[in-house]
Amino acid sequence: MHSPVALRAQARAGKWRGTTAGHCPAYQQANVVVLPSKYAADFAAFCSRNPKPCPLVEILCSGESEPILSATAADIRTDVPAYRVYRDGKLAERLTDVRRLWTDDLVSFLLGCSHTFEHALIDAGVEIRHIACGTTVPMFVSSLRCLPAGRFHGPLVVTLRPIKQHQLGLVLELGARYPHAHGSPVHVGDPTLIGITDLDRPDYGDPVEIRAGEIAAFWACGVTPQAVATEAKPELMITHEPGQMFVTDLPREAAPGSWRWTAT
Amino acid sequence: MHSPVALRAQARAGKWRGTTAGHCPAYQQANVVVLPSKYAADFAAFCSRNPKPCPLVEILCSGESEPILSATAADIRTDVPAYRVYRDGKLAERLTDVRRLWTDDLVSFLLGCSHTFEHALIDAGVEIRHIACGTTVPMFVSSLRCLPAGRFHGPLVVTLRPIKQHQLGLVLELGARYPHAHGSPVHVGDPTLIGITDLDRPDYGDPVEIRAGEIAAFWACGVTPQAVATEAKPELMITHEPGQMFVTDLPREAAPGSWRWTAT
Repeated sequence: MHSPVALRAQARAGKWRGTTAGHCPAYQQANVVVLPSKYAADFAAFCSRNPKPCPLVEILCSGESEPILSATAADIRTDVPAYRVYRDGKLAERLTDVRRLWTDDLVSFLLGCSHTFEHALIDAGVEIRHIACGTTVPMFVSSLRCLPAGRFHGPLVVTLRPIKQHQLGLVLELGARYPHAHGSPVHVGDPTLIGITDLDRPDYGDPVEIRAGEIAAFWACGVTPQAVATEAKPELMITHEPGQMFVTDLPREAAPGSWRWTAT
Repeated sequence: MHSPVALRAQARAGKWRGTTAGHCPAYQQANVVVLPSKYAADFAAFCSRNPKPCPLVEILCSGESEPILSATAADIRTDVPAYRVYRDGKLAERLTDVRRLWTDDLVSFLLGCSHTFEHALIDAGVEIRHIACGTTVPMFVSSLRCLPAGRFHGPLVVTLRPIKQHQLGLVLELGARYPHAHGSPVHVGDPTLIGITDLDRPDYGDPVEIRAGEIAAFWACGVTPQAVATEAKPELMITHEPGQMFVTDLPREAAPGSWRWTAT
């Protein structure tokens, strides 16, 4: 699937289930976090202070369901393949359409996703181990702390990708072009420096092999804002199902600076 | 003055008045918009949808006065050389300290500023005409529209800088490195294509001469969010005095992706 419009239409019609990784590789994908409005300003502050794990793609106004910057005519309530509903910080429900939960009080956040820069790395000939193995990227709770904002605070969750030493320069160059999708690694090399003691036991996802001549590179992870928001125990939080992202119409290369204007 | 800490201390002590342009050139400067919390989520949405005029540097939580990402131990209420206070969208007061107006209900936004990328252009040998002439940059209300968010909507205000044709490539390259400070121009060349009919009559600021061999380049302007917020007629809005910015500790090159972590 290459067209975000077509993928979203299939998700809306209930015909698309499963990961969006590898699909629509020319476009940005986004993490979804929906919160009651009373949490919105603090969560926006948290994202602004932690742009590596929480790169803001678009904030919707209270009650809005159309992301007019990132996907005109899309509906954030139906166009994600699957949703999770948390109540008081606990997973309560899995849905494929959240219209019946929608109220004018809900504020939606779209945050950059690693699928975006993984597609760029793959196009440049870099093997992404967990994709090659058909597993979920290994994620670790690091000893790095996010900057707090009101009730939102916690550790940085990072993803691990083994990189061939001769491709490390390429990966760092490309990563730096995607600040809107976790960008450059937050750490390269010795995992103990960021509090990770056993690479074979990730906190989420599946372990990956690190082969001879490969270096461990760690990126800020989009699970961070969900983990932090869950810890704040809001009475309601809606997110995408991990791996099943909202696919935007924004070109993969379009960092926040490059946008479409509406002429008068 | 090269040190943001020293400049802010002087501003706090009432010893610094006047523009911050040309000072602390290695650091980012920021526009300041302070609004009652009920406007915060929509204004954050507006900024996320209009990153060219409103590049988010940091959002503070309700009542907070310390921008812990961009200037630890600074105080947003005292460390700007001068402030404007708007009531119901009208300029009501000019102050050098806004502590007596402060409440737990106020949310502060720091937005990127053109001083940041002007310093980079000057360092690269590009003449900035209005700085060379000691005048205020010419600003025009263009026919380009911002994407709306709730009560916040309006036209894009742009700044004009004449650029020597042989330096245009350099200016575009450098601009693209500063998405956190209005970045690349939004238009280059014929001003009528963005609704500007008379370059000698800017809507704000002073006209500048365009000499033979120079091209008109137009950038998104930090006056846009202030103009848009003023139009929404909030009962209270506090901003910096134009040209007298909040000077952060963020390195000039540090786009939102590159940040400091706090280790546990």
